[in-house]
Amino acid sequence: MIGAEALLRSLVTSDVDVVFANPGTSEMHFVATLDAVPEMRGVLTLFEGAATGAADGYARMRESPAAVLLHLGPGLGNGLANLHNARRSHAPVVTIVGEHATYHKRYDAPLESDIDTVARNVSTWIRRSLHPESIGADAAAAVAAACGPPGQIATLILPADVSWSEGGSVAPAEPRAPRAAVRAEALDAVSAALRSKQNSALLLGGSALRERGLVAASRIAAATGAALLVETFSARAERGAGIPVIQRLAYLAEMAAGQLDGLRHLILVDTTSPVSFFAYPGKPSDLVPESCEVTVLAGGGDDAIAALELLAGELGAGAEPASGLPAKPDRPTGELGAESIARAIGALLPEGAIVSDEANTSGTFLPAFTAGAPRHDWLSLTGGSIGQGLPVALGAAIACRERSVLALEADGSALYTLQALWTMAREQVDVTTVIFSNRRYAILRMELARVGATASGTRALEMLDISPPDIDFVALARGLGVPATRPDTAEAFTADLERAFAEPGPHLIEAVIPSLF
Amino acid sequence: MIGAEALLRSLVTSDVDVVFANPGTSEMHFVATLDAVPEMRGVLTLFEGAATGAADGYARMRESPAAVLLHLGPGLGNGLANLHNARRSHAPVVTIVGEHATYHKRYDAPLESDIDTVARNVSTWIRRSLHPESIGADAAAAVAAACGPPGQIATLILPADVSWSEGGSVAPAEPRAPRAAVRAEALDAVSAALRSKQNSALLLGGSALRERGLVAASRIAAATGAALLVETFSARAERGAGIPVIQRLAYLAEMAAGQLDGLRHLILVDTTSPVSFFAYPGKPSDLVPESCEVTVLAGGGDDAIAALELLAGELGAGAEPASGLPAKPDRPTGELGAESIARAIGALLPEGAIVSDEANTSGTFLPAFTAGAPRHDWLSLTGGSIGQGLPVALGAAIACRERSVLALEADGSALYTLQALWTMAREQVDVTTVIFSNRRYAILRMELARVGATASGTRALEMLDISPPDIDFVALARGLGVPATRPDTAEAFTADLERAFAEPGPHLIEAVIPSLF
Repeated sequence: MIGAEALLRSLVTSDVDVVFANPGTSEMHFVATLDAVPEMRGVLTLFEGAATGAADGYARMRESPAAVLLHLGPGLGNGLANLHNARRSHAPVVTIVGEHATYHKRYDAPLESDIDTVARNVSTWIRRSLHPESIGADAAAAVAAACGPPGQIATLILPADVSWSEGGSVAPAEPRAPRAAVRAEALDAVSAALRSKQNSALLLGGSALRERGLVAASRIAAATGAALLVETFSARAERGAGIPVIQRLAYLAEMAAGQLDGLRHLILVDTTSPVSFFAYPGKPSDLVPESCEVTVLAGGGDDAIAALELLAGELGAGAEPASGLPAKPDRPTGELGAESIARAIGALLPEGAIVSDEANTSGTFLPAFTAGAPRHDWLSLTGGSIGQGLPVALGAAIACRERSVLALEADGSALYTLQALWTMAREQVDVTTVIFSNRRYAILRMELARVGATASGTRALEMLDISPPDIDFVALARGLGVPATRPDTAEAFTADLERAFAEPGPHLIEAVIPSLF
Repeated sequence: MIGAEALLRSLVTSDVDVVFANPGTSEMHFVATLDAVPEMRGVLTLFEGAATGAADGYARMRESPAAVLLHLGPGLGNGLANLHNARRSHAPVVTIVGEHATYHKRYDAPLESDIDTVARNVSTWIRRSLHPESIGADAAAAVAAACGPPGQIATLILPADVSWSEGGSVAPAEPRAPRAAVRAEALDAVSAALRSKQNSALLLGGSALRERGLVAASRIAAATGAALLVETFSARAERGAGIPVIQRLAYLAEMAAGQLDGLRHLILVDTTSPVSFFAYPGKPSDLVPESCEVTVLAGGGDDAIAALELLAGELGAGAEPASGLPAKPDRPTGELGAESIARAIGALLPEGAIVSDEANTSGTFLPAFTAGAPRHDWLSLTGGSIGQGLPVALGAAIACRERSVLALEADGSALYTLQALWTMAREQVDVTTVIFSNRRYAILRMELARVGATASGTRALEMLDISPPDIDFVALARGLGVPATRPDTAEAFTADLERAFAEPGPHLIEAVIPSLF
């Protein structure tokens, strides 16, 4: 069998059966082989950032990688921003980058580039398949590397002649490494800190943010008086009815400092010590108070949930304290704005929904108003590179066909990877996109003052406004095959949202709202 | 003055007075300084690929760099594909990449990445500004490096604290290096080859493709019987009335081999020896026949036009032979298709037009039907990474406000950087975009067979079709603020094209046509 077939069959054998693809000429044998390997599903995107972001969303929900098929160095470049985000979400992703034939590289043809160098920024594992005989094993190794734990990006560079030459064979799956058990010393150190009765908090992130982890953390808090916080931008957090409500660490360094003020012990559970997102003149980058000691209970590759449950046992924590389910908000009336939209979402979010949140400044009211919604998953922008939300929603919907997906998108962010809408229409996935159309990069308006650049000059502010001309997202969505509406009251928005949730296939609702900044 | 102001003023002093910008928080001081330095014009884009491609188009027309302002490593990643193309067009581009404050990097904040590594793939010059005192000189050095010759990409990495700190000063411009004079040995070798009366051809590219270069080459051809060819994808070629019509080397290796068959001497003038764009099983990558000797008259940094004129003199070439101006085609009638569109463009192209050509397979008929048009410039996709055409058109229009720009765009390619349309609307530039909407990646349909992947399976072909759903470019254009039409006959297309050329501001015409492949 040719290399391409060995690759596809080995991926399937390793339980990778979806490929988000933006192929070019050097990947034609991979594409041609799709008919011979019907177990592999190809999902076409119109832009690589949609493919890589979709692989991230898919992996967050499935906890198993999808593959991405990209065309040479420039194709990888287009996918790099969302691979950056995927790296930060610890999503397992297998990136397959087509390459010129081995003997063709020396001719410096127009598309020649240094793929390894581009890949290095986001990939912990990079391998160039040099023989059809080894490509099956390379694929199995890529999947195992991607799975970590924690999940990471494995990049397999695939020369065209290796793809089209005979000699390949299917490799068995490599075992996926389990998460490591918590070390006794870590458990003892955390236990001692919490027993000290000094001001303590657990900062929860990553794999800890599932029901079991959050319940165990709540038991610990009840037993010890420790505070609980969730990392600011988490890859996937279970929320809603029956799940303890835990405050997020604030994005704004000033507010986060307030949350951490007075702490003597900060316990990290699958997250990193909190730092300021950006540097600001005269303000510290490290948000941990000087008198606070940071202790790691579980790192990225550890079994954080088991660690929390062990810790709860060791501390003699009782059952989770009964906590009232926060009330759902009523359906909003009146003016359409960030608050009324958050109310409508809180009132209507379906059971089992997956929320891809890139609402940015317009999302301020969402956590409070959705805390009482039915059980759902919340996927955040992990790496700060905007343009993640729509692709992540697409990938989550491909991973979980039976669940309803809600993409909450700031207008400026949506425009980086809007092409994802077309793949939603093509695949007829149940994604409802809400565009928060405040017609500016509102977060930069806010940041402009925070970094001490006090210019109010019109030329500076023009660089932060995405109007004129006004962008018409209803037209854009329809142009890409997604039905869309632009309600102008809270009631109309709520009705549109209810309809979008009820009808199969993708929908988009553009909410033109005042900017909060 | 703060570092950001020193940077902006030094750029202006070095004759860089346009910046295509996609700023984020770390670039806020640069943005805020725009009001203090009104000589610098900021042009906002919604996606970095639009900014980098625009800088390429600008530089091709102005022969002087624009700056690009990008946000950290992921922003540079989004701009990488069109920087790859710009590298291949030898366009001078100064890329300024904002970076975390120097002291903030070690905290591994979410947007932390290795910018130098990302930049390395496309930049010949990379420098990290570490002090406000040196940033002015860094900017001047970046501009000089970008100017080459030949033009290249210079990347200046700008930490936020260097940008906001006091201590900067304006640096004088560094002298721009002139192109090198042709070496006597090169002239002698080429002279001898052409005098041998063996089958010879000059392959012209890069800076040679201006009127003076093409006229000198025609005189040489007339005096020696040598054939003339133009490189397949040139950054900028002058064409139209009064300029010698010279055939392009074909994209398809099989056709290019036919053009080069029987040659004993191939003379390169600011271009590289022809190689196949991709590798194909069993076919050579090097397109030069074995018995043909390749001689370089002028390389990338040389004064190719002076070399051609010297050579013409040395060979005793006479004045350029009179050659009839090819007739303009009549306005087309009947069905809309790749051929009738090419006829309409040939009939209507305005004097001084700039054509950004990313028509791909649908552009087959364009060279023949536009050869008799008034004087114009033709800008091709230089690096093979699709998504260049609209941004290059935008940049060319910003560089040459008084000229009419025509963007010829394949539908699949347009969707990579469609955001450029919004900046066209915002800046109200005279760009007419024609979308060749054949609803597939037609070139991949063609390449699928050429690489020997003979699958005709539906799952493979689905990966090459961008329908369903049909993409509605009229809706997409209107969504981004550009008026658009979708004529359905050749007559209607011609009328729409005439109106678009006549009216100020951007227009888009979607031509739904049968695919040639």
